[in-house]
Amino acid sequence: MRLTIYLFVLLFLNICFSQTNNTVYEANWSSINARPLPGWYDDVKFGIFIHFGVYSVPAFSQPTGYAEWYWYNLMNPSNDGNQTLDYHTKSFGKNFPYQSFAEMLNLRLFDPDEWAQTIYDSGARYVVLTSKHHEGFTLWESEQSWGWNSVNIGPQIDIVGALSKSVKEIPGMHMGVYHSLYEWFNPIYLDDLTKNPPTQVYVNEILQPQLRDVVNSYEPEVIWADGDWEALSSYWESTEFLAWLYTNSTVKDTVVVNDRWGSDCRMKNGGFWTGGDKTNPGYLIPHKWENCNTIGYSYGYNQNEPIYDYQNSTVLIQEMIETVSCGGNYLLDIGPTSEGTIPMVMQERLADIGKWMDINGEAIYSTHPWRVQNDSADHLIWYTTNTNTGAVYAHSFEWPESGKLLLNAPIATSYSSISLLGYKGKLPIKMAPTGGRSGISITLPNASPNDYPPFDIFVFKLLNVL
Amino acid sequence: MRLTIYLFVLLFLNICFSQTNNTVYEANWSSINARPLPGWYDDVKFGIFIHFGVYSVPAFSQPTGYAEWYWYNLMNPSNDGNQTLDYHTKSFGKNFPYQSFAEMLNLRLFDPDEWAQTIYDSGARYVVLTSKHHEGFTLWESEQSWGWNSVNIGPQIDIVGALSKSVKEIPGMHMGVYHSLYEWFNPIYLDDLTKNPPTQVYVNEILQPQLRDVVNSYEPEVIWADGDWEALSSYWESTEFLAWLYTNSTVKDTVVVNDRWGSDCRMKNGGFWTGGDKTNPGYLIPHKWENCNTIGYSYGYNQNEPIYDYQNSTVLIQEMIETVSCGGNYLLDIGPTSEGTIPMVMQERLADIGKWMDINGEAIYSTHPWRVQNDSADHLIWYTTNTNTGAVYAHSFEWPESGKLLLNAPIATSYSSISLLGYKGKLPIKMAPTGGRSGISITLPNASPNDYPPFDIFVFKLLNVL
Amino acid sequence: MRLTIYLFVLLFLNICFSQTNNTVYEANWSSINARPLPGWYDDVKFGIFIHFGVYSVPAFSQPTGYAEWYWYNLMNPSNDGNQTLDYHTKSFGKNFPYQSFAEMLNLRLFDPDEWAQTIYDSGARYVVLTSKHHEGFTLWESEQSWGWNSVNIGPQIDIVGALSKSVKEIPGMHMGVYHSLYEWFNPIYLDDLTKNPPTQVYVNEILQPQLRDVVNSYEPEVIWADGDWEALSSYWESTEFLAWLYTNSTVKDTVVVNDRWGSDCRMKNGGFWTGGDKTNPGYLIPHKWENCNTIGYSYGYNQNEPIYDYQNSTVLIQEMIETVSCGGNYLLDIGPTSEGTIPMVMQERLADIGKWMDINGEAIYSTHPWRVQNDSADHLIWYTTNTNTGAVYAHSFEWPESGKLLLNAPIATSYSSISLLGYKGKLPIKMAPTGGRSGISITLPNASPNDYPPFDIFVFKLLNVL
Amino acid sequence: MRLTIYLFVLLFLNICFSQTNNTVYEANWSSINARPLPGWYDDVKFGIFIHFGVYSVPAFSQPTGYAEWYWYNLMNPSNDGNQTLDYHTKSFGKNFPYQSFAEMLNLRLFDPDEWAQTIYDSGARYVVLTSKHHEGFTLWESEQSWGWNSVNIGPQIDIVGALSKSVKEIPGMHMGVYHSLYEWFNPIYLDDLTKNPPTQVYVNEILQPQLRDVVNSYEPEVIWADGDWEALSSYWESTEFLAWLYTNSTVKDTVVVNDRWGSDCRMKNGGFWTGGDKTNPGYLIPHKWENCNTIGYSYGYNQNEPIYDYQNSTVLIQEMIETVSCGGNYLLDIGPTSEGTIPMVMQERLADIGKWMDINGEAIYSTHPWRVQNDSADHLIWYTTNTNTGAVYAHSFEWPESGKLLLNAPIATSYSSISLLGYKGKLPIKMAPTGGRSGISITLPNASPNDYPPFDIFVFKLLNVL
Repeated sequence: MRLTIYLFVLLFLNICFSQTNNTVYEANWSSINARPLPGWYDDVKFGIFIHFGVYSVPAFSQPTGYAEWYWYNLMNPSNDGNQTLDYHTKSFGKNFPYQSFAEMLNLRLFDPDEWAQTIYDSGARYVVLTSKHHEGFTLWESEQSWGWNSVNIGPQIDIVGALSKSVKEIPGMHMGVYHSLYEWFNPIYLDDLTKNPPTQVYVNEILQPQLRDVVNSYEPEVIWADGDWEALSSYWESTEFLAWLYTNSTVKDTVVVNDRWGSDCRMKNGGFWTGGDKTNPGYLIPHKWENCNTIGYSYGYNQNEPIYDYQNSTVLIQEMIETVSCGGNYLLDIGPTSEGTIPMVMQERLADIGKWMDINGEAIYSTHPWRVQNDSADHLIWYTTNTNTGAVYAHSFEWPESGKLLLNAPIATSYSSISLLGYKGKLPIKMAPTGGRSGISITLPNASPNDYPPFDIFVFKLLNVL
Repeated sequence: MRLTIYLFVLLFLNICFSQTNNTVYEANWSSINARPLPGWYDDVKFGIFIHFGVYSVPAFSQPTGYAEWYWYNLMNPSNDGNQTLDYHTKSFGKNFPYQSFAEMLNLRLFDPDEWAQTIYDSGARYVVLTSKHHEGFTLWESEQSWGWNSVNIGPQIDIVGALSKSVKEIPGMHMGVYHSLYEWFNPIYLDDLTKNPPTQVYVNEILQPQLRDVVNSYEPEVIWADGDWEALSSYWESTEFLAWLYTNSTVKDTVVVNDRWGSDCRMKNGGFWTGGDKTNPGYLIPHKWENCNTIGYSYGYNQNEPIYDYQNSTVLIQEMIETVSCGGNYLLDIGPTSEGTIPMVMQERLADIGKWMDINGEAIYSTHPWRVQNDSADHLIWYTTNTNTGAVYAHSFEWPESGKLLLNAPIATSYSSISLLGYKGKLPIKMAPTGGRSGISITLPNASPNDYPPFDIFVFKLLNVL
Repeated sequence: MRLTIYLFVLLFLNICFSQTNNTVYEANWSSINARPLPGWYDDVKFGIFIHFGVYSVPAFSQPTGYAEWYWYNLMNPSNDGNQTLDYHTKSFGKNFPYQSFAEMLNLRLFDPDEWAQTIYDSGARYVVLTSKHHEGFTLWESEQSWGWNSVNIGPQIDIVGALSKSVKEIPGMHMGVYHSLYEWFNPIYLDDLTKNPPTQVYVNEILQPQLRDVVNSYEPEVIWADGDWEALSSYWESTEFLAWLYTNSTVKDTVVVNDRWGSDCRMKNGGFWTGGDKTNPGYLIPHKWENCNTIGYSYGYNQNEPIYDYQNSTVLIQEMIETVSCGGNYLLDIGPTSEGTIPMVMQERLADIGKWMDINGEAIYSTHPWRVQNDSADHLIWYTTNTNTGAVYAHSFEWPESGKLLLNAPIATSYSSISLLGYKGKLPIKMAPTGGRSGISITLPNASPNDYPPFDIFVFKLLNVL
Repeated sequence: MRLTIYLFVLLFLNICFSQTNNTVYEANWSSINARPLPGWYDDVKFGIFIHFGVYSVPAFSQPTGYAEWYWYNLMNPSNDGNQTLDYHTKSFGKNFPYQSFAEMLNLRLFDPDEWAQTIYDSGARYVVLTSKHHEGFTLWESEQSWGWNSVNIGPQIDIVGALSKSVKEIPGMHMGVYHSLYEWFNPIYLDDLTKNPPTQVYVNEILQPQLRDVVNSYEPEVIWADGDWEALSSYWESTEFLAWLYTNSTVKDTVVVNDRWGSDCRMKNGGFWTGGDKTNPGYLIPHKWENCNTIGYSYGYNQNEPIYDYQNSTVLIQEMIETVSCGGNYLLDIGPTSEGTIPMVMQERLADIGKWMDINGEAIYSTHPWRVQNDSADHLIWYTTNTNTGAVYAHSFEWPESGKLLLNAPIATSYSSISLLGYKGKLPIKMAPTGGRSGISITLPNASPNDYPPFDIFVFKLLNVL
């Protein structure tokens, strides 16, 4: 009895605090890591990453390379076997400085409402825009990057501001920013590193003011740090920032962050985990994580990207399913052009995913990993579940010629039922317990081609299975 | 008997003459029109049109508009409700002359071998490149367009030469050029028109030397005239040119031309007919014709083209089938960017068509219109035939839910047989005569989704039908 | 009878004061050469040459070189030991075409009224502007040079028109144009030359229409041909043009031309003679001639011109005096910048000459060569005379330390008198016959420095000498 | 004992000829102001100021305006009645940001050796180059102005470094830098000012590191502060900087600075005084001062500067004489073009001054103000003296018609003598005491014009006068 009351009081307090959330976080990782992840992030599952910057002008890398690293490759030619340097020299002249590309970032056709709508129609529910990449160029008028931002030169547009407004106007959408901690060539930063121990002029005068400015000005709900690997989080003053963000900022209750806050942080400290780029482990990770994937290979727009670097819609959706099945969010990247358009091939991919989500969204949004993630050795069947409805979703990437699809993991009961999302045919799909304790055998019909759900991905919804 | 010998001799002579072809054509339409169409053109069925020029730099039109008309729209704002003018003013300034775009035509990533290979892989077997569009800018170093061509300024590349070389190096490929007869703003031309009767300074000093130059320099096998409508063919001296082309040029035996040689010519004089743009009559035309179609709406690259202006691969292939079925060739347009790349969405369409042609090419290449073109009122079944094998191809755009596909036109015999191109399933497709004299009823199986041929277009090959 | 006489008188008067010159000139040199030179040209003596074109953008040559030959030197590097090529490569890149400079001809500060006023204030009374130099770029909207003229591209200004208007608005001023017969790189012209005998497509379709157009449109009073040396005047159809100009054009009564009308013409056929550039023979030429001189060395603006290539005002005025003394006109060149300004050092020279002319103009304007041109072996004293007043002007470039200036040529009489133009002092200058028949000895005073006329050029006006 | 005296003498000599200055200056004005001015500065008298920056690209202001204030005028149109804004809009478009001009700063013809030689030949012995003007753009690779300096963008040249090297290679020449304390539009600075009291982020992170960097890197001998007026010297931390400069820097023994170190400083604190721009009081200032003057009106190159804004060589030399006579140094400004050339009119002025200095340099260099500065009410006679030789120099701007020049100030003795510098004539100049105690009457000869010294400025050298 006493225990019951005690627990009740605890629960009550918990409710009170969670509504007003006056928790004070301290500038150390144990305090920061203890903060619960705001719920919206796990619910939406799917977001769009946008890499946009001065690199969107030359928009070049070797095939299967990263165009957003153009400047770095230009200055460090051994990094890509001179390919960027050769292209640059041939195209713009040896002495054409990277900075001059900023003028050519024209955004003549930029329509942030259209970007937001295209993203929304893909089924994505959050956006992460590069407020600053490693080049240091900011997409808003940062005081700390005077003359090297999109308002002072080039398009003369507050891109962070414009897109934030458009995204937030769509109910259910969340806006976030990527921000590089380091800058390849900022001499103030480079100077810090030459000292032993490093001074922190760059952090105190540039990075931290910028981070606080972008939060105060645009109230993003994702802060996606990167470029952290050259120093410990103590150099970057990451915990100081996060303590402020979680305790004092206007977005303290809803903001989520990732784990790239210093060379001591990945898969360990911060908010959701990201690991390396395009991480997709294939097994359940016991902490919220995110897979930042691409449509082609490059994050920034690469005009030189060959067709074989592009993944088709089926592959992209499969990647999303595997990610969600293993507890991750799927952050799919697009690289707009310097004119401000989303390349048509990317628009089409987003539209395809949206079409798939219209049919199968219930197997993605607000789901959780099931007790088993992957049914088969060849990674062709993945599970999600909705803990409210109890539905288990088996996403199959195949339709066996035999007409028999075997699911080893679920345990059928007498109440169990099955359906195929988006199937237009009338013939029943039959499910039978296998001989042993677990496993379900599904008898698949053959159908007219237009009866099948699109993209060769088949989501079976199982009810009342164990 | 005598008649037989006589005919035999005629045939023999015909063979002799067709090999040496010393026919002399005269500068009048009856002589020109009497020339037989070189056979390769009807055999290949499918070509790629390339619109490239200074307009590829601004690469803008209103949605559902033609970007290659940018300059015209700029100077005649009522033509598109000021949309080009407004965009131009906002983006480049009121006083930025169209000519200045030529500098920005950079072709940094231009790889003519890659263009040629991409086109070949689509299944197309000829190319028609705009050697000069209405803007007057030539893609080779034309003496008559000094300083206003791609060798003197901008990319400083002989584009016609480079692409011709790459295309011709692929066996089975044919290279052609589009050439605009008029030039919107060439004062020499405009001056001609102010006289009554018009003088022909433009024709004699610019147009005719250019046409002969492009033929002599690059030996194209297609001359695709356009911009003819403001004057009679007598003004353009079209018959004089064609008589020379057919009688004296090095391509006299293989070159084909279209019908846009003057306001008195369309669907009447010249070589194959084109009618208006994107012509697709839906019935048999009793003269070889061509349908020049687009992937988006614009011929020249339009960065502002919305996703709804793009046709998917299924629609494009259907359009090709209808065209070929009615005796036409299909000339599908692509609009490369000023960097020299083919937009990825277009590359994907071409790859898709290529994939379809790999399976269904025999129903397209070297076929002829059958005695019936279209079986159904809703334009869902189209026929082609191969007169050598006797095969009749029924291209169905549907797969009826009922499982019964009724073909009204073919007459089955006891030897008749049927197959579905690209069908991977093992179940037989059954065909039965209908009750009456003509018509075949096909019983379709249901299959696993991966057994169906792609793109929802089903080509039934009928043998021994009447 | 009375009426007849009356009419006869009228006819006689009409011939004398001939306002309607109905002489018909024929297209041969004897007819052309027989035309009298319109009087205004010999009266005004001093004009300003303006070299302006695309070359005004790079505005570069080696020191003591001609910047207007930039393109030629670029394409023929041996012509200046690679200096232009090296500069071009370093500054703009190897592949930057000359034509692209046209865009940068911006004329942002162009004020034709200011140009005209600056010229007028120098004492000059005519202007010769390069309507087209050897590069082929026209400074008006020439149909024959579509897209390669200052109205279609670059400044988008009708420079010939604007300056003609401004110059003609000042009473007493005459406007003229320079026009290059050949164009270095016009392929139509180059093509003509490859034929034997040369065809005349260039002449008929480009040059002659252009010349007539510029005359009809702007009514210039000087046609200054150049670039004639590669062909005979028969190729250029020079006599045909001049016959038309002298007989039919609206400027037939006032226009003057030079002698550069073919390789058979210099110092022989046409109007006034020019010989080579900067001709100044130092003796009387028995035919009206002209010395086209420069302030620096280059005609077109040369940013790279060193200070030692600039002549000071004294030297320029001396050159003018020698020229006029020997029967020539002085055409002094200025090279405006691509911004449309006259370099300040040139403005100052013109202002200086104007200041000198204010004082000494009577010794220049409307004068004639005297019976002797140069009094001394060291070319320090030159004569002009005014045949109306009988005044003889001795222009001395020295002020002897001895105080005795000896003029050998004039013969004093008892009525002779002498004065020094612009001398502010009160002490008389004394003149005495020398011992022999001819010669005058002048006793010069010493004076306060501010009493002397400026620029160390001393014009003694002699009256009643023989 | 003898040793003691010997050592004492050595110590005394050591103090006098102090080559090792170990004085420690403190960060307060009384300590700073107590430092003696290094002697070279007062000896050389004449230096050249160079205004060069991004403003050298548009190179525009209204007539009689300052082109280096272009950006300010653009953003504050009321400052010049919209003239810069109107010009900018017409020429570059409303949305063309000032920063984009940096790309056009090309320095294609920059030759620092030539600049240095041209300056040396003018007679000047020090140079002050704008290392940073109010726009914030630095002419060296300043870490604190990353991406907004001449090495990272535009010419990609270390201009401060290149010119320093060239200047220092000429014996007797001294190199200095101008550095603006404030930056019009640097948001870090503007942000400081919004706080009460102002924060000093700008000073600590940008200004002070920059000043120390420029000193350490280039060892300038003049630091010419400016842009100080919006804050007290305590904000700028001027005394801290100067204490370091005077005590610890490598140039502590030779560097001179001006007085623009805060709104509390002009004509009061720092090194030599400058007052306002172009200061020339006309009377003796009891502290070393400097007159920074211009040839035209603008400091930065102004293409739009009319001829009437240019002062001729005589006026410029007169200005120098008055300045030196009253204890000042003369810092004459030139504004090079964006191509890197010194406008020819400025080259000519410098050459003229050099020609005058060749003759009259002894009356300028190493002189001191005399007991009287100006002899006449109309400011036509000014004095300097050489305290070593005892010579007094009377610089007369006139040559009286009367032939009598009266000097009121000098007192003749029986040993007095007089000569006219640069006078080539042989006639003696006679000097007589006036009736009273002081004053000398000079009887001037009249001479041949070429005997007079140039530029109508006459320096009488008086020996043995009181």
